[in-house]
Amino acid sequence: MRTIDWVDGAIELIDQTALPERVEVLRITTIDALIDAIARLAVRGAPALGVAGALGVALLAQEEPDPARLRLAAAGLRAARPTAVNLGWGVDRALARAVDGPAAVLAEALAVIDEDVAACTAMGRRGADLLTDLVGDRPLSVLTICNTGGLCAVERGTALGVVQTLHERGRLRRALVAETRPLLQGARLTAWELGRMGARYDVVVDSAASFLLSSGEAELVLIGADRIAANGDTANKVGSLSLALGAAHAGVPFVVVAPEATIDHTTPDGSAIEIEDRGAAEVVEFGGRLIAPAGATAINPAFDITPRALITALVTERRVVELAAGEALAG
Amino acid sequence: MRTIDWVDGAIELIDQTALPERVEVLRITTIDALIDAIARLAVRGAPALGVAGALGVALLAQEEPDPARLRLAAAGLRAARPTAVNLGWGVDRALARAVDGPAAVLAEALAVIDEDVAACTAMGRRGADLLTDLVGDRPLSVLTICNTGGLCAVERGTALGVVQTLHERGRLRRALVAETRPLLQGARLTAWELGRMGARYDVVVDSAASFLLSSGEAELVLIGADRIAANGDTANKVGSLSLALGAAHAGVPFVVVAPEATIDHTTPDGSAIEIEDRGAAEVVEFGGRLIAPAGATAINPAFDITPRALITALVTERRVVELAAGEALAG
Repeated sequence: MRTIDWVDGAIELIDQTALPERVEVLRITTIDALIDAIARLAVRGAPALGVAGALGVALLAQEEPDPARLRLAAAGLRAARPTAVNLGWGVDRALARAVDGPAAVLAEALAVIDEDVAACTAMGRRGADLLTDLVGDRPLSVLTICNTGGLCAVERGTALGVVQTLHERGRLRRALVAETRPLLQGARLTAWELGRMGARYDVVVDSAASFLLSSGEAELVLIGADRIAANGDTANKVGSLSLALGAAHAGVPFVVVAPEATIDHTTPDGSAIEIEDRGAAEVVEFGGRLIAPAGATAINPAFDITPRALITALVTERRVVELAAGEALAG
Repeated sequence: MRTIDWVDGAIELIDQTALPERVEVLRITTIDALIDAIARLAVRGAPALGVAGALGVALLAQEEPDPARLRLAAAGLRAARPTAVNLGWGVDRALARAVDGPAAVLAEALAVIDEDVAACTAMGRRGADLLTDLVGDRPLSVLTICNTGGLCAVERGTALGVVQTLHERGRLRRALVAETRPLLQGARLTAWELGRMGARYDVVVDSAASFLLSSGEAELVLIGADRIAANGDTANKVGSLSLALGAAHAGVPFVVVAPEATIDHTTPDGSAIEIEDRGAAEVVEFGGRLIAPAGATAINPAFDITPRALITALVTERRVVELAAGEALAG
C-alpha cells in the first residue's frame, strides 16, 4: 500500500492522523480537501509533500488547464506548510508542464512518484553502506525522531528507509524511537512501521535521547530533513538539534537522510529558514484534554535548525556529503 | 498552603496527581499510604521527599517506639524511590532521634520542615544574586524543567524558588517551562505555580529547548537536582542533560539549585548513581489511552546525569560552587 498515490482520477492517501488505531484511506477530489489534509497533517513528511504538491497541481489542471490561472490556483497549495521545501518543489515540477496540458502535468506528477520510490531505495542502500563504514559491520542500535519511513514518502522512507535496509540486511539490533512531541509521530507512526517490518524497537521520550546516547544505548542518530540550506544547515522536526548535540556529546555519528529535492540552494544558511509555529493547542491539549492550567500559553516551533558542523554526513539518493568534515554541498 | 506538613497527628499533603485540575489534600495516617503516595508521585521532588521521609518515621514511631524495630519498619519507606537521596536522608534524620522517643522523632521531622523553608528562601536569594552577576541586572528569560517550586518542597522551591525571587524583584521577563514528559510536571505543576505567582510563562515541548536557547528565546537554564555526586555530577529529571548541552551550545549559564542534603558525598561520580526506570506505561499511554501501537515497548529512565563540566554553578542554601570552572564540592 502506498502512502499517497493517483488512483482513478483522484488522490488517495493514508490518513496519518488515524494511525496507529486505524488505517483509513482518504480519497481527495478537490484542492481544498488536499490543503486541509496537508494542514492537519493527514499527509506529512518532506517527500510525501513533494508528491502531494505535484498531484495537487495535476488535480487542479483537470479543472483549470490555462497555465497562468493554474499557477494562481496553486498558490494556496504551496502555502499550506511554510517550512517544507518539497511541497513547493513538487508544485513547480508539475506547473512546469502546464503549457503541455493536463495530461502532461499528470505524467510529471506520476514521474515524481516513481522518482521518489527509486530515490528512497537508493538512500536506504547508500545510508546502510555508510553506517557500515562509520560504525562497523555488526547489528546496530539506532536512534531516530519523527517519522521518516514509508509514511513520509510513497513506499520506503528516508532515515527510516535506512533503518529498514539495515533490518533487511540483518544488521539492525534495535531502533530507539523518540516519541516526537507534540504530535507523537515517532510513537504513533514510526513505531507502527517498525512493528510491520518486524523490527525490534523501543519508544523513548524525546528528552531521554541524549542520556541514552551517552550511556551507549544507541550508537548513532538518523534523521530526515524538511529543508537543507545551501551550506548544509538542516531544518527538521523540533528536537533534531537536541539529538545532534547529544550525538556530539556521546561521540557518535549524526546522519541526515533526505532526497536532493530537500536541498534549497536559494537559502544560504539556516538563519534564513522560516520556522513554522503551529500554535499553543498542540502543546497544552492532548486528545482534547487540557494538560496545562486553563489559559496556559505555549511556544510551538514545529522545526529547528541543526548547524552543518554537527552533521556527520548527509545521505541523498546520489551522494554522501560529509558536512562536519567540511565537505561542501554545492560544487 | 504547605505542600506537605504535620497536622493533628498525621501527614497532610497536596495530591499532585490531581493538579492542575483540582487542589486535593490527602490525609495520610499509615506508612503504607505514604509509600503509595510517594510511588505514584502524589508527593515528589527532592526536598519534599526528605520531609516525607522524616514525617514518615515520625508516623511510624507513634506505633513502634522501639528504635531497632522502627529502623526495620522504615526500610520500605526508604526504598519507595531509588534515585532521590533526600528520602533516605530524611528517614535517617528522624531515625537518629529514635532513642529519645516518638516526641523527639517528631520534633526532628518538624525541624526538617523548618530548615527546608529557610533553605529554599536562602537558595532563592543566593540564586537570584548569582544570575545578576552572571547575566546582568535586567529582566531575564529563564528556561526550567520539571517542577522545582513550592510543590517540590514545603513552601518555596529550589530552581523555581530562584525564578520566584526574580519575579518578586521585578527581574523575570518570562519563564519557559519544559513540559517534562512523560508525566508533564512542567506543564501541570510548574505552569500552575507560575500562574499563581502572576508570572509570565510559556510551555514548550522538551525537545524545543535547545532550539529556543540557540535562538535567544531563553538566556539561561535553571534546574533542581535529585542527587548530586561528590564530584558535582548531577542526577535530575530526564531531559536535564539535553538542556545542559543546549545551554553549552548557546553559550548561556546552566545552574543547578538544590539543598546541601541533595549532595551525596558517598557517591563519587555520576556513573555510580542508580537510575530508576519507571516502566513503559508512562510513555506509551496517556490518560489511559494508548499513544503507540498495541504491544509497543519503551525505555523510561526517570532521571539522567549531567556531568559537572556542563554545570556553570551549583547553588545551595549556603554557597555557590562554580563546577564547570573547576571548583570542588567537598573540601
